[in-house]
Amino acid sequence: MNITVLGTGNVGRVLAGKLLELGHDLAIGTRDPQATLARTDPDGMGNPPYRDWQQTHHEAQLLPFAQAGAFGNIVINAIGGDVALAALDAAGASSLAGKLLIDLALPLDFSHGMPPRLTIANTDSLGEQIQRTYPDARVVKTLNTTFCNVMVNPGLLAQQTNLFLAGDDTDAKTTAAGLVQQFGWPAHSLIDLGGIEAARACEMYMQLYFTLADRLGTFELNINIVTRNT
Amino acid sequence: MNITVLGTGNVGRVLAGKLLELGHDLAIGTRDPQATLARTDPDGMGNPPYRDWQQTHHEAQLLPFAQAGAFGNIVINAIGGDVALAALDAAGASSLAGKLLIDLALPLDFSHGMPPRLTIANTDSLGEQIQRTYPDARVVKTLNTTFCNVMVNPGLLAQQTNLFLAGDDTDAKTTAAGLVQQFGWPAHSLIDLGGIEAARACEMYMQLYFTLADRLGTFELNINIVTRNT
Repeated sequence: MNITVLGTGNVGRVLAGKLLELGHDLAIGTRDPQATLARTDPDGMGNPPYRDWQQTHHEAQLLPFAQAGAFGNIVINAIGGDVALAALDAAGASSLAGKLLIDLALPLDFSHGMPPRLTIANTDSLGEQIQRTYPDARVVKTLNTTFCNVMVNPGLLAQQTNLFLAGDDTDAKTTAAGLVQQFGWPAHSLIDLGGIEAARACEMYMQLYFTLADRLGTFELNINIVTRNT
Repeated sequence: MNITVLGTGNVGRVLAGKLLELGHDLAIGTRDPQATLARTDPDGMGNPPYRDWQQTHHEAQLLPFAQAGAFGNIVINAIGGDVALAALDAAGASSLAGKLLIDLALPLDFSHGMPPRLTIANTDSLGEQIQRTYPDARVVKTLNTTFCNVMVNPGLLAQQTNLFLAGDDTDAKTTAAGLVQQFGWPAHSLIDLGGIEAARACEMYMQLYFTLADRLGTFELNINIVTRNT
């Protein structure tokens, strides 16, 4: 399948690498491909420059947002929450219309240190903002509740954990569920949280996630939901 | 030990019942004991009136907030988040000074339906507000992340789950940890999230908790934190 990943940071690369491994045709969207490839310094998180990754992933096409948006049958928003709406605007509403748009971006503000605050919370969420801005896209919030290494390899953790899906379009959620199952998430580990307004729950949980990451010294963590009958 | 539970609702009763079972001397704080005992209708959540519970728990002393606050060596804030500061004000700063104050109240707003919104989030929390308002109390936010039946009986769930503690006073956290261990939480299930500002993480998680409760059809749920080495 043709899949577009928006974002050339670590999260985008990890997802893109897994999608290539799975045999999908892939485009990675960025504002200015030449500028992205020209960078030689590690990014703000200490990851090597994108061009190092590109050299070992020749099959990934690096395209401007508009062309990348047109390429994929599925578009994955893996860009920083602060620039997600701008990136989607550059990708273009007509390119997004009718498509599954997997949103895993987080509206984080690290300016006060760890854990980051959210720039949107409680009465709204980034997932809802994206769905409102692109009413013809079929937005599913998923994958955002754990680290990218775990997103594409849930077996990395010592026990099975859960992944959430929130979105208004049932077919789109089914397609998203199929994709994350390719990543290794068993069907019974997926929890449908309901409509896109449940993106609030997925995003607000991140305060606990980052607090735990800070205390436990690892981002490679996730939660397992336990009931009486789990 | 003398322990005070503030709040006569279901959460307060379940905690008080467990504390009596464990052999503690118990006071329950309410605004007006006569008014509390005079009620004959179920409360807003459909729980039987308090006096039914009192009849089978004679050892529990029902006292006005001020007397109840003075009674306990440990005070547990198990009252609705919307009235928690008023109840603590009635209990009195001098009664709270130096004591472990376990705060499990949630600043919830159900006026928009399920899941409730938070009335405080992201840049502040009820736990922090309480610590700021009563700087001489030793506030520990804990227990709030699951249902009261699970708080006092974690073995109710199919697998072991985790409980969090947040507070500025290390000794107070140790005492709180000892108390929840009496409830059945193994020491290794407790995660110290750091200072009282981590109450934000515990409170913001509730958006996911209530979304899950709504979708899974049970409040009896909790999370298990999984890392590579869990």
